Amino acid sequence: MISVVIIGTGNVAQNLYQAFEKSSDVAVKQVIGRNQKHLAFVNSTLLSSTNFNRIEAADVYILAVSDDAIKLVANNFKDIDGLLVHTSGATSLEAIKSAKRTGIFYPLQTFTKGKIIDFDAIPICIETTHEEDLKLLKQLGETLSKTVVEIDSEQRKTMHVAAVFVNNFTNYMYTIGAEICEEHKIDFKLLQPLIKETAAKLDTLTPMQAQTGPAKRGDQQTLHNHLQVIKDKHQRELYTLLSNAIKEKHGKKL
Amino acid sequence: MISVVIIGTGNVAQNLYQAFEKSSDVAVKQVIGRNQKHLAFVNSTLLSSTNFNRIEAADVYILAVSDDAIKLVANNFKDIDGLLVHTSGATSLEAIKSAKRTGIFYPLQTFTKGKIIDFDAIPICIETTHEEDLKLLKQLGETLSKTVVEIDSEQRKTMHVAAVFVNNFTNYMYTIGAEICEEHKIDFKLLQPLIKETAAKLDTLTPMQAQTGPAKRGDQQTLHNHLQVIKDKHQRELYTLLSNAIKEKHGKKL
Repeated sequence: MISVVIIGTGNVAQNLYQAFEKSSDVAVKQVIGRNQKHLAFVNSTLLSSTNFNRIEAADVYILAVSDDAIKLVANNFKDIDGLLVHTSGATSLEAIKSAKRTGIFYPLQTFTKGKIIDFDAIPICIETTHEEDLKLLKQLGETLSKTVVEIDSEQRKTMHVAAVFVNNFTNYMYTIGAEICEEHKIDFKLLQPLIKETAAKLDTLTPMQAQTGPAKRGDQQTLHNHLQVIKDKHQRELYTLLSNAIKEKHGKKL
Repeated sequence: MISVVIIGTGNVAQNLYQAFEKSSDVAVKQVIGRNQKHLAFVNSTLLSSTNFNRIEAADVYILAVSDDAIKLVANNFKDIDGLLVHTSGATSLEAIKSAKRTGIFYPLQTFTKGKIIDFDAIPICIETTHEEDLKLLKQLGETLSKTVVEIDSEQRKTMHVAAVFVNNFTNYMYTIGAEICEEHKIDFKLLQPLIKETAAKLDTLTPMQAQTGPAKRGDQQTLHNHLQVIKDKHQRELYTLLSNAIKEKHGKKL
């Protein structure tokens, strides 16, 4: 049985709490947050606390707070004996070095407010400096997920950049698609099966293999027609830039 | 019972053929293609034909050929009495006007070679000029899908542009994510749950609501750190452009 204390009240903290509560191999000893209201998701009020001066003893302390608060909040854990980990993809191990034993416990997923996620298929990226801490984090990760991988800070930073492209920037492509639909009174929901299949293709194909569309085919006529449809200056710029990039990548003449 | 002739041997033709073969409301009378080899997917050789001079009688003729071949191939159907439709998102009804009765039967989905797709959730966008032809197309569409919508040529063109953003350009974001992973020896498969969840979020949120990430938060430190990780000039440009666009859209100061 691994005992944990969760620090934070955001989407990651809530999802970790719910997942650990279901596990018979993990005991949540405490959930600490600044704001009592935001701790409402914790089933027992005995578990929740706003007091950083009364931290329960535990094997692992999970800092699930926003990136810019990590360093500051970590200062409260200078004297604890347990392992202090943060859950950020973009923050180094350095940021929490004030603690005695430190590590990373980074679930590679996007979390939505109020939506409880099944951790089973979510990769958990771990890092720490001591062999026995690594074993502990691995064990903790495996109570949630089938995929627990050791990733060092450099790789994690890189992975986070890749995640921005496939998640944040992809969502921005959805945003433009929705804007174009709205402008022309088309129901954006009609595009959803396409969006899901675009993601599902990666089960069997690399993105290079999965690429389709007028730019890939070098179909100048359609590219030209599309630019006539797009009125927004920014959307036109993006359309041209991305089409040219795809053409270039797939060896079509510009 | 609606009788159809399919013209073409590509992904769309193959998927339509497989789907109609399963339906008890549709009889596939013939599949016509230029190349006998490419017609191998047709179960019965009696059905397949390379001869455009011997076209079977049918209610609907479905031109599932590449966009630039539509006009040319349509010329073979000048004298038929059935309804000639094409399956292209980017091509107007005009392109097949040589036929007596014309229409559009556009399944809004991305098709992959060798992958049979379930049409059930795929929107089928139809268009035609005569009331009775519309009824026929609607009926035909409903043998495959729960979502058959009447969309005129202008809307279809716009929808196709939106589809390029959410499908082709999204896939390009995946491509860059994969490149970054490969360059740093990270398994791209680790990002797949994130990719799927990014798409799945749209079940409950608009893309505007679903946006997350450093640009959305206006987190300059992370944006700066990421730009230090990205070495490729083109990737840096795209990272900056899209981050600024997201910041602007979500009202963060540039």
